[in-house]
Amino acid sequence: MIRPLRIALTAALASVTVQAAGEPPATPAALVASSPADAWADISAEDLIVMTIDGGAQVIVQLAPAMAPRHVANIRTLARAHWWDGTSINRVQDNYVAQWGDATEKKPLPAGLLQTSAADYALPLANRRLRVTPLPYPDAYAPKTGFVAGWPVAMDGNAAWLPHCYGYVGVGRNLSPDAGTGAELYTVIGQAPRQLDRNIAVVGRVIDGMAHLSSLPRGSGELGFYTGSERPVPILSMRLASDLPAAQQPHFQQMDTTSPSFAAYLRLRANRKDDFYERPAGGVDLCNAPVPVRPAP
Amino acid sequence: MIRPLRIALTAALASVTVQAAGEPPATPAALVASSPADAWADISAEDLIVMTIDGGAQVIVQLAPAMAPRHVANIRTLARAHWWDGTSINRVQDNYVAQWGDATEKKPLPAGLLQTSAADYALPLANRRLRVTPLPYPDAYAPKTGFVAGWPVAMDGNAAWLPHCYGYVGVGRNLSPDAGTGAELYTVIGQAPRQLDRNIAVVGRVIDGMAHLSSLPRGSGELGFYTGSERPVPILSMRLASDLPAAQQPHFQQMDTTSPSFAAYLRLRANRKDDFYERPAGGVDLCNAPVPVRPAP
Repeated sequence: MIRPLRIALTAALASVTVQAAGEPPATPAALVASSPADAWADISAEDLIVMTIDGGAQVIVQLAPAMAPRHVANIRTLARAHWWDGTSINRVQDNYVAQWGDATEKKPLPAGLLQTSAADYALPLANRRLRVTPLPYPDAYAPKTGFVAGWPVAMDGNAAWLPHCYGYVGVGRNLSPDAGTGAELYTVIGQAPRQLDRNIAVVGRVIDGMAHLSSLPRGSGELGFYTGSERPVPILSMRLASDLPAAQQPHFQQMDTTSPSFAAYLRLRANRKDDFYERPAGGVDLCNAPVPVRPAP
Repeated sequence: MIRPLRIALTAALASVTVQAAGEPPATPAALVASSPADAWADISAEDLIVMTIDGGAQVIVQLAPAMAPRHVANIRTLARAHWWDGTSINRVQDNYVAQWGDATEKKPLPAGLLQTSAADYALPLANRRLRVTPLPYPDAYAPKTGFVAGWPVAMDGNAAWLPHCYGYVGVGRNLSPDAGTGAELYTVIGQAPRQLDRNIAVVGRVIDGMAHLSSLPRGSGELGFYTGSERPVPILSMRLASDLPAAQQPHFQQMDTTSPSFAAYLRLRANRKDDFYERPAGGVDLCNAPVPVRPAP
């Protein structure tokens, strides 16, 4: 079982294509790779933040203006003020978050930031012409879950909010009623801490370069803050993609969550059909069905 | 909001103690820290594997013989044969797994390994005198969940199995009917890939040194395998704690999942009461209520 072992581990531990010509895709990855152009939607350059860290590595964050309009407006203001340039990633707590911002906590904020409040943690869905693709499986944190405009949402009555899934970006804040400006950000690097849902604003997700954050050394200080000889990771710049020269602008697409391809993707996520899986799960968690994102072809 | 900000981020993004004298613990961490001695059970040295990797860092894995007896027997046989010494961590896939074993796939296995099968992926609970502490919140992957003998379990009828939670350890395998020997192991470093439940044997969990695995550079090869100039992390040794000299044996305890302290811990995990939380979740995911483990006092 020498060659077969590696093949099997391949089948065992990832979504590889196990597919004969003419058969429908057997894995989520194969389905995404073969989905038609009309299953994809361009992501606006106004919604992409390019973070360049020490050494030149880039992390790209997609903002969710439809779900977090006031915080997203502030993040655009902060990026246009180059506020994050010279700040750092200064906290990495295992199975929790990597956090960045002004470690000195003394850097003046730019003018024009909007006031935020707990009302920004969830938004009403009614009268917004947003089509919900329901996820028909139970969730420990919300009565209903699904997908809206390319984003996972948890829902309670008419209220919908972005969940704290892996790679999702939230806004650090002071004790309530402060809801955070958007200057102090973190991303989830472990099991979804859904207890933070509706207690902190989730404003976007990392769509490229996540490993530059998730593989950072964990901090030895309380809550994973870097201390002593542990060096915070300098942030060289954070820019809106739309403010970059055209040649430097990244271009990404997300799968249309109202498309037949996405419906098929969810079915495969919940019921794996490739040879490795003896027993399809019959369900999938909201945070275990990431909306497919790809570089624009 | 300069000082308050750091204080708030502390409250915001971890379980810190926000507690006045005489009040009940307000956070899971505070409750665990103040739980009585009789809420804790020693973990047998026979159930602890000490993995020492390049540079001397140690990762400690707790085995679950009650839930995976045949695979655990094999892992003990492999450790006693020093089989992993000189092997490596050779795959790290972001938001999925870090995997170790014999990258050459040619190292002969020791004698005495038990045959395993799909029957080892879940075990019957009946007639085993195991007390189940139910987790009364819905789960996307199983009709019921709870805790048995210090371990989280998903349940369907009389069958119970260990879930693929963060830090849990599974056995790589070939295509069915092979269920893996236990020589090729991985641990979850991201969102719980519960679709693997009952398709792969889960045999234990990392209880110390997890960051030595989760912060490793991600591999650039297919499925995160290290390739080209990426150097697999040498495994210097893997030993059963009971085979180490007494002075080198680690001693850990896990919270008794039938104790009042654990019941209170679950209630707090589902309903945070400290000042930061405006809106308690009212539920908690099976993989978001890790069984407390501590060094033996």
